[in-house]
Amino acid sequence: MDPRTIGVLGGGQLGRMLVEAASRLNIKVVILDTPPNAPAKQIQATQSHIHGDFKDPYKIRELAKTANVLTIEIEHVNAEILKTLMNENTIVIHPSPSTIKLIQNKFSQKTHLSKHKIPVVDFIDVPTKDDLSIAIEKFGYPLMLKSKTLAYDGRGNYLLRSEDEISNALESLGNFSIPLYAERWTSFAKELAVMVVRRANGEVKSYPVVETVQKENICHLVFVPAQINGVISEKAKTIAEEAIQTLEGAGVFGVEMFLMNDGHIYVNEIAPRPHNSGHYTIEACETSQYENHIRCILDLPLGSTALKVPAAAMINILGKSNDLQETLRPCAESLSIPGATIHLYGKQDCRKGRKMGHITVVSDSISQLFSRIKPILEIVNENEHDISTTMKIQPLVGIIMGSDSDLPTMKPCAEILKSFDVPFELSIVSAHRTPNRMFDYAINAHKRGIKVIVAGAGGAAHLPGMVAALTPLPVIGVPVKGKILDGVDSLYSIVQMPRGIPVATVAINNSTNAGILAVRQLGAFIPEYLEKMQKFMEKQENDVLAKVDKLEEVGWESY
Amino acid sequence: MDPRTIGVLGGGQLGRMLVEAASRLNIKVVILDTPPNAPAKQIQATQSHIHGDFKDPYKIRELAKTANVLTIEIEHVNAEILKTLMNENTIVIHPSPSTIKLIQNKFSQKTHLSKHKIPVVDFIDVPTKDDLSIAIEKFGYPLMLKSKTLAYDGRGNYLLRSEDEISNALESLGNFSIPLYAERWTSFAKELAVMVVRRANGEVKSYPVVETVQKENICHLVFVPAQINGVISEKAKTIAEEAIQTLEGAGVFGVEMFLMNDGHIYVNEIAPRPHNSGHYTIEACETSQYENHIRCILDLPLGSTALKVPAAAMINILGKSNDLQETLRPCAESLSIPGATIHLYGKQDCRKGRKMGHITVVSDSISQLFSRIKPILEIVNENEHDISTTMKIQPLVGIIMGSDSDLPTMKPCAEILKSFDVPFELSIVSAHRTPNRMFDYAINAHKRGIKVIVAGAGGAAHLPGMVAALTPLPVIGVPVKGKILDGVDSLYSIVQMPRGIPVATVAINNSTNAGILAVRQLGAFIPEYLEKMQKFMEKQENDVLAKVDKLEEVGWESY
Repeated sequence: MDPRTIGVLGGGQLGRMLVEAASRLNIKVVILDTPPNAPAKQIQATQSHIHGDFKDPYKIRELAKTANVLTIEIEHVNAEILKTLMNENTIVIHPSPSTIKLIQNKFSQKTHLSKHKIPVVDFIDVPTKDDLSIAIEKFGYPLMLKSKTLAYDGRGNYLLRSEDEISNALESLGNFSIPLYAERWTSFAKELAVMVVRRANGEVKSYPVVETVQKENICHLVFVPAQINGVISEKAKTIAEEAIQTLEGAGVFGVEMFLMNDGHIYVNEIAPRPHNSGHYTIEACETSQYENHIRCILDLPLGSTALKVPAAAMINILGKSNDLQETLRPCAESLSIPGATIHLYGKQDCRKGRKMGHITVVSDSISQLFSRIKPILEIVNENEHDISTTMKIQPLVGIIMGSDSDLPTMKPCAEILKSFDVPFELSIVSAHRTPNRMFDYAINAHKRGIKVIVAGAGGAAHLPGMVAALTPLPVIGVPVKGKILDGVDSLYSIVQMPRGIPVATVAINNSTNAGILAVRQLGAFIPEYLEKMQKFMEKQENDVLAKVDKLEEVGWESY
Repeated sequence: MDPRTIGVLGGGQLGRMLVEAASRLNIKVVILDTPPNAPAKQIQATQSHIHGDFKDPYKIRELAKTANVLTIEIEHVNAEILKTLMNENTIVIHPSPSTIKLIQNKFSQKTHLSKHKIPVVDFIDVPTKDDLSIAIEKFGYPLMLKSKTLAYDGRGNYLLRSEDEISNALESLGNFSIPLYAERWTSFAKELAVMVVRRANGEVKSYPVVETVQKENICHLVFVPAQINGVISEKAKTIAEEAIQTLEGAGVFGVEMFLMNDGHIYVNEIAPRPHNSGHYTIEACETSQYENHIRCILDLPLGSTALKVPAAAMINILGKSNDLQETLRPCAESLSIPGATIHLYGKQDCRKGRKMGHITVVSDSISQLFSRIKPILEIVNENEHDISTTMKIQPLVGIIMGSDSDLPTMKPCAEILKSFDVPFELSIVSAHRTPNRMFDYAINAHKRGIKVIVAGAGGAAHLPGMVAALTPLPVIGVPVKGKILDGVDSLYSIVQMPRGIPVATVAINNSTNAGILAVRQLGAFIPEYLEKMQKFMEKQENDVLAKVDKLEEVGWESY
């Protein structure tokens, strides 16, 4: 496919998945890492891998001689020698050594992002103990104290809660042997991540926004689509892409972010390589982050970053202890879960906290996804931490009504959706009294993941039709019966729409049927709801048949 | 994950994809094949592969010593030694050597299937030239003359069209040096294939029915879901599963079938291993055929065989000549096609007709799939053969009406769907005059892939509601205006449905809106239609704004 050879600094699981993607394209990869049986070296027959440290200048030069393009799968490499090699102009290196160097130092990284107007939480340099006092004065407790370098998976972070902890904190962070800085503590609503893809020619794409759940600062669970408002999702993508535009070089970049309760987003950290939060792309996206990394650095056309499944999750398999079998219990469980794919990294030694593998689960809907991953998470977590509380599902159906006086009429619709386990929202949107709110609601609904809108209105019932005029989604209209005209006024107002703008009208006051119709629309594409609809119809038939039997039994007089 | 080692006879592309799946599970695989750089040997660092012929008894014994379970990736192996090994009871072998032996001989295979009442086309043994005359007398011309053994990818087949060709045919098939048999020539409507999965414990599952397109007897294109009636699809699955139940041993099996114009299905051939028609499962199904083959032979829980994408296709990359770059032109093209994934097999020598790789394309809908694969097929085919003629798309929308007199009212609905490129069907289904047809239509629509039904009716307009009472799909009702009562009779009949059975009613005689509503329902799940709907609404707005301008320009008097 491409005659060039890629040299990779680092041979862990990210390198392994990179090699897997390269093999499919018949692209040669040479790995530099110390263990002769490093994960990435295990899945290629080539004997040309280099066994040595990815910080060793001589070994890096050796790697450069065998390859046309160098890249990294870990950022803690020797960036200086990469800079030298780049200046010698003998080899292409992606991402740029200056980017790698910048990212190695979290303080420089934050300074750089801040300078480029990328939102980050407040931070301050802490070169000495005196500066720590200044930081505490400025940001108060709790204070996040961080090592500037060599920090990953939570190592090098200390959440300082009070003065008593200062000496402990400094000691655990090496008493300034590694330089420190401090960040204002932020209580975020969610952690998000976006994988951004940049081709050597400058073209940029990004993968969908994912939600990540960390446990003791290690990524534990990733799921997609993030269950957030679509407008916030767009904002997160934009911030991530803008952050990557400030850096040099090609490749995929993981951008970790905090979403605050007020909708603010802060960039937390950037990884200049394939990232744990993008593992799911192998099974869930049209092109994986690994193949796109290869395409980026070889300056080939970028692959599509779109999801090819409605929902996906990734669960890390971290060593529970030295016992591999105990660690792999979630994998054994997942063999019986539809949509689950196991990835093990071939690491020989199992150690507590070590990343031994991951499981990706794909699904037809986010609610089905959560029920699929539940049994795996129960084993992973050993009930120590109930992850399901963080899983708020975005609505698929929006129920709106012109006034709270319509609530009694619209409630049966909500009850039907609830009984079918359809995630929905219910609110008041009045065409006449809140036209601006109606406008916003209608033009944003599909961006937020809503698949169908149910609108109830009475009298001069304009809400369903006006919403239908603004949204590309199907709108179901429920004519609400008023005190006069028997609801015929509402029915005509809703059903007799002009050519071009349809409203799916149901019977007067019959919001039950609106709910059922919404479920049928979902069921045409989500098998889970089609099956439930079939069962519902069977039950409905059996309920009537039971009455037939009863009538037969007791006779019409005593019925 | 599992400490057992799998020994594989054969190291081609099927073995390679098997190794890829095994690596993810950290399961060890040892390959037996002659070339030291066979495709399957390239993607494992282990040096324990065996370089030798998969027919060589000594090499097979050597393989058996290194492994816990033996399997095959090609059926032309030495089945006798496998039988001996199995009788010695020292190793597990899947599929059973007796199955491999049976399948090696196409005549025995057909005899076996026929004995077990699996439908196959008529066939007859042709041990001598005299028997050929009997066969010709029985089946007439054209006659399919076939080698019983060592035949694959079209080699060993001769379509005998007249007496003149007899000596040519016999010569090209080796003049009875390989035994021959004959089949009645069948002019099939489509070729179908089903991958059936059988676990060592006997549990059976199958993948969706695919359509295959052969060119010169070599598989060229596979797509899924097969664009056939869902009832026929179920029948094909059942026949495939029943055929596999007659064979011994575990693994995945490819069942190739012919679909005749009258709906009859004949089994053509069975492959007792992963199959070309199942390559697409890597990207398109919840678990790939390769991982499921491993699970089957290790007696692990079977993975889900469900599609995880709405549609997928697989295009084989066959050597065009000795020139690899020329052969790989479709791959270069597919780098720019969303949803396309390239698999190259690492074969060093490119030769005309050799399977060098394949491209899988996934998509949101079958129509989008066909437009995605078109540019790839144009390069593959060099316009010698227009494949698109075989691609008939199954309808997503069903338009029905009570009488042909409703056609003028329902036509605009068809025109809208046509303008949005929505595949649809239009027919007459009367609730009152053809109740049986209505019943069949309604209960089968969702099985055939229909996502929404549009029903038009006038007067005592029962059709939409009665159909809604039988299908779990959403039904859109169009009240058709009669000569009296202005259509209000139809409107009430359609909209005032009882609780439990909704009909999405649009304005009287406004089938345009029914079409638009159907597109909106599809668009909630198929992004292509959502985008088109947004453009449609923009155009609609601009058309009116143009009238605003015109009115402004010419004034109301001369407008």
